[in-house]
Amino acid sequence: MYMRGLRLFTEQGVKNISSQKLAGLVGVNSHQIRKDLSYFGDFGIPGVGYDTGNLLKHIRKILKLDTPRNAALVGFGNLGSALIGYPGFEAYGLYISDIFDNDRRKVGRMVNNIRIKDISKLPLLKKKQVRLAVIAVPPIAAQEITDKLVKVGINGILNFAPYYLNVPKRVKVISIDIAMDLAILPYYLPTGS
Amino acid sequence: MYMRGLRLFTEQGVKNISSQKLAGLVGVNSHQIRKDLSYFGDFGIPGVGYDTGNLLKHIRKILKLDTPRNAALVGFGNLGSALIGYPGFEAYGLYISDIFDNDRRKVGRMVNNIRIKDISKLPLLKKKQVRLAVIAVPPIAAQEITDKLVKVGINGILNFAPYYLNVPKRVKVISIDIAMDLAILPYYLPTGS
Repeated sequence: MYMRGLRLFTEQGVKNISSQKLAGLVGVNSHQIRKDLSYFGDFGIPGVGYDTGNLLKHIRKILKLDTPRNAALVGFGNLGSALIGYPGFEAYGLYISDIFDNDRRKVGRMVNNIRIKDISKLPLLKKKQVRLAVIAVPPIAAQEITDKLVKVGINGILNFAPYYLNVPKRVKVISIDIAMDLAILPYYLPTGS
Repeated sequence: MYMRGLRLFTEQGVKNISSQKLAGLVGVNSHQIRKDLSYFGDFGIPGVGYDTGNLLKHIRKILKLDTPRNAALVGFGNLGSALIGYPGFEAYGLYISDIFDNDRRKVGRMVNNIRIKDISKLPLLKKKQVRLAVIAVPPIAAQEITDKLVKVGINGILNFAPYYLNVPKRVKVISIDIAMDLAILPYYLPTGS
């Protein structure tokens, strides 16, 4: 969240930021901000605040985002094609380098200078040392694809299939189920609305 | 997560499910499953398992998803247009009933039988008693749009703008930042990969 907030400020050319201002953007109080940032070894300058560029660089390094990384996209349906156009990935040093699908009509097509490959070509990822994957396949296929990705050395998965994925401990899965997130909201509506 | 798991099973025509099977799908152990579901007053039948349809109905009711609800979509750029085609919402009883944008070239266009309206028409939501909104506008506009939505009676917001939103206590915000979720993954990669 700090990184996200700092990116917004640096994009606007803001060079220094007070803990109060950062607090408003991140949604915690300024005491917490000062405490958190002191863990990073950055204490800011009284009356001036924090150097936004420096702080951003530091946080990116902690999160290992200072090295650009490739990620494979598996599944090129509605969601997959929306994701390939999503500008946010590159802002965090992540590049979709490979696209896979099992639909013969899609395989071979060029998208963003990437040729869509058949699922059977997943072992290529091992050779190319791609360690991250985005799964956008139907739920019924998600576990099978995951098993294949794990086999070719994938260590991190961003999963859009509404399905719990079983993976070995070395693999980190982050799941996003947009509809389920929206489905949580009615619970919080006042009674009668 | 139970709801999501149960939906997958009912779609496949599975009428009864053991706590072990549900456990595998949800990612917790079967003891936890039995404990959780006993809170709902459902204890299953030994040797038969849980009635999937009944359990699903019960959970939907707890989450207040048994009543269909309308939601407004604000922002019809790349992400907004991908969201309108996302089939998951209706599965949870949620319907995009209104679309707003401030781009004159988009206002007036028909999408899924909905005419895109200008942002100035947001007060319509109060009249139509729409209480939920999906925000897919650029970060710089997110807080301003949020303030307007709060003013016209919105109680629940699904926020795709990479920005922390300040709202009164009665309003629940769920934020989704797809790129940030992917950005977390490299941190978990083994050193040197």
